[in-house]
Amino acid sequence: MSVILVNGSPDDRVSALDRGFSYGDGVFRTMRAQGGQVRCWGLHHAKLAHDCFRIGIACPPEETFRADIETLLAQQPDCVVKIVVTRGQGGRGYAPPSDPMPLRMVASFPLPAFSGDRARNGVRVRWCQTQVSVQPVLAGIKHLNRLENVMARREWSGDDIAEGLMLDPCGRVIEGTMSNVFILEAARLITPALTEAGVAGVQRDRLLQLAHRLGLSCSIEAITPARLLASEQIYLTNSIIGLWWVAAMEDRDWPVHPITHALVELLALPCDE
Amino acid sequence: MSVILVNGSPDDRVSALDRGFSYGDGVFRTMRAQGGQVRCWGLHHAKLAHDCFRIGIACPPEETFRADIETLLAQQPDCVVKIVVTRGQGGRGYAPPSDPMPLRMVASFPLPAFSGDRARNGVRVRWCQTQVSVQPVLAGIKHLNRLENVMARREWSGDDIAEGLMLDPCGRVIEGTMSNVFILEAARLITPALTEAGVAGVQRDRLLQLAHRLGLSCSIEAITPARLLASEQIYLTNSIIGLWWVAAMEDRDWPVHPITHALVELLALPCDE
Repeated sequence: MSVILVNGSPDDRVSALDRGFSYGDGVFRTMRAQGGQVRCWGLHHAKLAHDCFRIGIACPPEETFRADIETLLAQQPDCVVKIVVTRGQGGRGYAPPSDPMPLRMVASFPLPAFSGDRARNGVRVRWCQTQVSVQPVLAGIKHLNRLENVMARREWSGDDIAEGLMLDPCGRVIEGTMSNVFILEAARLITPALTEAGVAGVQRDRLLQLAHRLGLSCSIEAITPARLLASEQIYLTNSIIGLWWVAAMEDRDWPVHPITHALVELLALPCDE
Repeated sequence: MSVILVNGSPDDRVSALDRGFSYGDGVFRTMRAQGGQVRCWGLHHAKLAHDCFRIGIACPPEETFRADIETLLAQQPDCVVKIVVTRGQGGRGYAPPSDPMPLRMVASFPLPAFSGDRARNGVRVRWCQTQVSVQPVLAGIKHLNRLENVMARREWSGDDIAEGLMLDPCGRVIEGTMSNVFILEAARLITPALTEAGVAGVQRDRLLQLAHRLGLSCSIEAITPARLLASEQIYLTNSIIGLWWVAAMEDRDWPVHPITHALVELLALPCDE
């Protein structure tokens, strides 16, 4: 099922004293591999390095990840690839060791079954009660402290609901439990700022950069629940799903917007790296 | 140095797919063992079980922890004991598995060197820039998402500063990076509410319950930085340090208050269990 490399060697375990396990002291990425290539690897690596920098972890060099990924994809060319980088082992106590040895885990997982249908037919989403917490020091980073996403995701079960949307303490829409959110309003794509809360995904960046090709302008603005529900279409992005459009939320239904399939295809383009 | 039991067996590693490592999806406790006994075990276990309940993890039964602890303390009767309980292994994705098998780790660590001096002579503390985030769903719980404590603790190094105090986004004092905070004001002990943010430690509960023995009333109130600095004495509590008093912060110095050593002794009493 999964193949796992820890610091480059096949292994399915990590130290019980690793600070990733003790404190969630690390970052991660989840990517899609197709035909033996990780999609948008350059963007993912840049984000990984940036996230490591922000929390003060020395990110291993790009070529070590590339070698790990090559090993995995030789066995499973189409899969989900996950990378975790932690601050490595440490004793008790929050103070990082003076000379930390970061740990890297690179693993492959089977592709989820859902991708095709949901991208075509749209998805049903719901609100989460669990809020996204505000933490400017960590906002935007895909770090390992994801218990609030877990709590939000526990709010429902079953396949009928594809995603839950989360609000910040001021009641503004920030993201889905596993995706970034955009709304379409009169040829404009709008997505919330993630400078105070949330995770800034690679596909969010890409959509912000590519949307002009479809004649759409993009802006980063606050989105209230009312504004979201009144929009012409809601989109969710991440590197595994690509782009999903929301067909139903609460008592509202949306038909597929004329531009939606072009947006799906836009994010499915190869990354220029 | 450390002895580690994972699910009851000597082991120093955990699965790389454990949700504690992936998401910080678990809780922990840090306790002090003296003469082969964990201090306040009953209170710690109650808190552990409560924290597990809050995030929906089935806490292993008390006797399994007691057996683990007995094994450890036979080798190291005076030490720090740490317990971690996670939701166990899971695949990719935030949704917990339908039938999770929680993992328990019980480990002993050497006692830190600092305890004695600091309790006697008082400590110097500072403000942290890193805020405590507001997250009502997780507030009070000693969960494994501790990256903000790590970021706060990284703000200083060296032994001169014993602890950093953290504020919530409204600028109210919530806690230290590893301790709870009390202030003394005219025979009243005051500590902040931890219903929106922070970790509610066992020694905080004890102090709230025992302070009347010294003629002190206790209340839970908001504490601004100005109020803290104007107080007669600042105290820090946790299960390893017991109670420290603050001798210096910013440009302020406090002499030891007449009641302070009695408070240190109060928290050093055996727990009635």
